[in-house]
Amino acid sequence: MLEKTTRINLLYDFYGPLLTERQRTMLELYYHEDWSLGEIADYFGISRQAVFEGIKRARKIMEGMEQELRLFAKHVRRREIVEQIRTEMKGSSDRKAVESLLQELLDLD
Amino acid sequence: MLEKTTRINLLYDFYGPLLTERQRTMLELYYHEDWSLGEIADYFGISRQAVFEGIKRARKIMEGMEQELRLFAKHVRRREIVEQIRTEMKGSSDRKAVESLLQELLDLD
Repeated sequence: MLEKTTRINLLYDFYGPLLTERQRTMLELYYHEDWSLGEIADYFGISRQAVFEGIKRARKIMEGMEQELRLFAKHVRRREIVEQIRTEMKGSSDRKAVESLLQELLDLD
Repeated sequence: MLEKTTRINLLYDFYGPLLTERQRTMLELYYHEDWSLGEIADYFGISRQAVFEGIKRARKIMEGMEQELRLFAKHVRRREIVEQIRTEMKGSSDRKAVESLLQELLDLD
């Protein structure tokens, strides 16, 4: 459950700006503020089911955008590459290895 | 004109996957294949005006997404940082300078 929530939070960081205001509010109340479906339903004056569907749809949209753009996956890979360069720099800094990592960074975009 | 076309091509590389199939086809025929509005209109069986509006709208959507996600701007900055690290590596490779550039790379995401 925690892992799933973490993934949603990270997807939200990347794709939240492309959701509607209403979708963002629902996700924030549910995942960040830990409101129940019932509380969110009362807040919007809609049914629990509508909130459930709204959250499900927002998540599906974000997963769909990730499938197309891979921003989250690239972000993770970029962090790994930076860590590898840091490790190289701590040692005798093999320039060829660093160059190859830098090239991978460029190719990711 | 060339500069404008280049920007559209680059935005298309980033956000094309989020457009509809029809929007993608219109942009590709117009900007990549250099078809006229009239030729595209004939192809879709719609008016020239509808093609003009469709292309305008697709560009507006991509500019709107760039304003929110800044993928293109980050891409440009990332290339600059990688070039700066390369320059550092060619010289006496100042580790502090490289670390500061790596940190900036991470902060961009």
